Amino acid sequence: MSIAEETKSIVEVEKGSIISPAGFTAGGVHTKVKRKRNDLGAIFCDVPASSAAVYTLNPIQAAPLAVTKESIAAEGKLQAIVVNSGNANSCTGEQGLKDAYEMRKKSSEAFNVPEHYVAVTSTGVIGEMLQMDKILSGVEAIETKGSFKDADSFNEAIMTTDTMKKHACYQMNVDGKKVTIGGVAKGSGMIHPNMATMLSFITTDANIEPSYLQQALSEVTNTTFNRITVDGDTSTNDMVVVMASGKSENEPLHPDHPDWSLFVKGLSLTCESLAKKIARDGEGATKLIEVEVKGAASDEEAGKVAKQIVGSDLVKTAVYGTDANWGRIIVAIGSTDAKIDPDNIDISIGSIPTLKNSQPVWFSEEQATEYLKNEEVTIHVDLNVGEGTGKAWGCDLTYDYVRINAGYRT
Amino acid sequence: MSIAEETKSIVEVEKGSIISPAGFTAGGVHTKVKRKRNDLGAIFCDVPASSAAVYTLNPIQAAPLAVTKESIAAEGKLQAIVVNSGNANSCTGEQGLKDAYEMRKKSSEAFNVPEHYVAVTSTGVIGEMLQMDKILSGVEAIETKGSFKDADSFNEAIMTTDTMKKHACYQMNVDGKKVTIGGVAKGSGMIHPNMATMLSFITTDANIEPSYLQQALSEVTNTTFNRITVDGDTSTNDMVVVMASGKSENEPLHPDHPDWSLFVKGLSLTCESLAKKIARDGEGATKLIEVEVKGAASDEEAGKVAKQIVGSDLVKTAVYGTDANWGRIIVAIGSTDAKIDPDNIDISIGSIPTLKNSQPVWFSEEQATEYLKNEEVTIHVDLNVGEGTGKAWGCDLTYDYVRINAGYRT
Repeated sequence: MSIAEETKSIVEVEKGSIISPAGFTAGGVHTKVKRKRNDLGAIFCDVPASSAAVYTLNPIQAAPLAVTKESIAAEGKLQAIVVNSGNANSCTGEQGLKDAYEMRKKSSEAFNVPEHYVAVTSTGVIGEMLQMDKILSGVEAIETKGSFKDADSFNEAIMTTDTMKKHACYQMNVDGKKVTIGGVAKGSGMIHPNMATMLSFITTDANIEPSYLQQALSEVTNTTFNRITVDGDTSTNDMVVVMASGKSENEPLHPDHPDWSLFVKGLSLTCESLAKKIARDGEGATKLIEVEVKGAASDEEAGKVAKQIVGSDLVKTAVYGTDANWGRIIVAIGSTDAKIDPDNIDISIGSIPTLKNSQPVWFSEEQATEYLKNEEVTIHVDLNVGEGTGKAWGCDLTYDYVRINAGYRT
Repeated sequence: MSIAEETKSIVEVEKGSIISPAGFTAGGVHTKVKRKRNDLGAIFCDVPASSAAVYTLNPIQAAPLAVTKESIAAEGKLQAIVVNSGNANSCTGEQGLKDAYEMRKKSSEAFNVPEHYVAVTSTGVIGEMLQMDKILSGVEAIETKGSFKDADSFNEAIMTTDTMKKHACYQMNVDGKKVTIGGVAKGSGMIHPNMATMLSFITTDANIEPSYLQQALSEVTNTTFNRITVDGDTSTNDMVVVMASGKSENEPLHPDHPDWSLFVKGLSLTCESLAKKIARDGEGATKLIEVEVKGAASDEEAGKVAKQIVGSDLVKTAVYGTDANWGRIIVAIGSTDAKIDPDNIDISIGSIPTLKNSQPVWFSEEQATEYLKNEEVTIHVDLNVGEGTGKAWGCDLTYDYVRINAGYRT
């Protein structure tokens, strides 16, 4: 079955969320760490769910990452994920680690599950101690709160400089059983290939063992969350956690299951949708930029070149200024170590060819400017040296990026 | 002799320039490619000068680079360097190469020297053909022009988005003979480690063979021009060319000459001074940022970490906003593959310690903000894993960077 055919049998659920898959609830509360918005949220599964996660590659990692890794390592199962925003519990030393364990313990009591079934995570300012009294009373409040079947209230609780909520949901049939995958994400700055200040939580009712879930997540992360960049920095707190309740009662998924690639594709669509929403919501951004590279020596090199282009401040400002400046694109192409033929590169901006065999072709500047006014802009590059393809996503660089980051203490 | 002692015997010549060393003249003219400012310049040496050069690492290279490489490869000697600004002669295919050869030929006639004694170089917009009639009449005019002993008029001719002229000059004694090194540079955007839209020309009256001059230049470039970043992109046109007239009549310099390291230090000071001026003049910049890393596993890794910090958009905006945001600095430190100990990093902003053993130390935000208002800001990092040291230079990221780059067609 080709990917196109697989995609056909995957349906996007428009208002779906992390509570669409069977077994999951979620919600958020306001603990007053932040002035107004919810700042503590939880996802709960009524059975122990197969779980897997990927983490930031920054060797400087916040305390909750160590605690969550420990939880998942125990059995590969989780029932609750508890997240606070406003404070990253990063660079907080031994006290920070103690606090993360305490947050896990309190959560395990509130949800009445073993401690190692709880993941904790934090996002916000680095280098300050958690206000544990607020966190702990928030944890107590959250489970009993009326709104605890409200993905939006959870989503609000994990936002920092985000300006929009980020949900995604897809459905497919796995051996005749309906399987749903829901996801939520936060992140708008410090976003880069290897997962910068971004968090994403994926839920599914698929039946799958933790090790295969990990395999699917790792594979998919590589071409989705690791292909977005806002400003090239990699935070200390990022993670993507996926929980699978098994409630759809399909035959356990594994790489030899006939619907394995369908499930992986569904997971990939969910992650790609969230990744693009993060890129679109880059700090100060007005546009989503998608770069699609083909003709590379390998898929990996195509992805590397795509990321270099979409991460170039000069390309990002040109898109902001609706300037079809392919000169900056070719400069970015030459800035990686990917194999290229300097005399044989093609570039199109949208459907407008601007460079063919590394030489300018005439195009209407007016038409190009008009195209660049769109909220989604695609740049196509053909390196003409092989069969590798890859995409990456980012956003334009604007006055507001400077305004937000010259003022916000992360 | 220690570096400190060497430095003592090197004197900065305050108003010195590329025409301070014996044998050199320079000037610029207005060919009307640009609206107002000089746009064609030349440096001339009245004897064949030992010459060496380093070039952009971008595999997509502009036509004049091929021609200049050919000239220097012939004998390692140059008498004239001719530069135009406003048009980079890049991505211009066969016609572009022909034009670069034609520019060299006309220059060799104007200065009455063999073609392979002429280097040509271009900077400006990519993808447009040179206006050869203007370039060629400019070349004819330049040698006879009254102002042809005017380093400023040459400097003006090589500027693009630069807002200030960039000269440097140092003197030292080599076997009792006075040796002068002068330099000039342009560049303010697309500046990155591996020499982005930047040009620099160094002259000296030292007596040195081309191969040793190349050795000295390559060594020095690595810790000066390759340690600056404005926006992380690498252009198609960059080069540093050095010419040595030999007129100071010192014994030929080579690595075993007692004053070799003194000469290399003098060259290094010249290049560092120019590199810092380029970083300070980054598009829209209001501040020079210097990052000094020590305690790295090697000098190379120290340099890599320093560049990562100074290239971080988040650090750059924080400095612009006078926000002592060490959280962003530690995030950048973790974003390279350099060896670090996540629990043992020290960070100071100016002389204000902000992080010790990876944990926040109290500091006065007010005092830090006051310090960050300076036009030169230094960030000190101790990785505490080895003896490696290294510096890098960049600038803050401002509203004006966005304004300039959302509009300027490079």
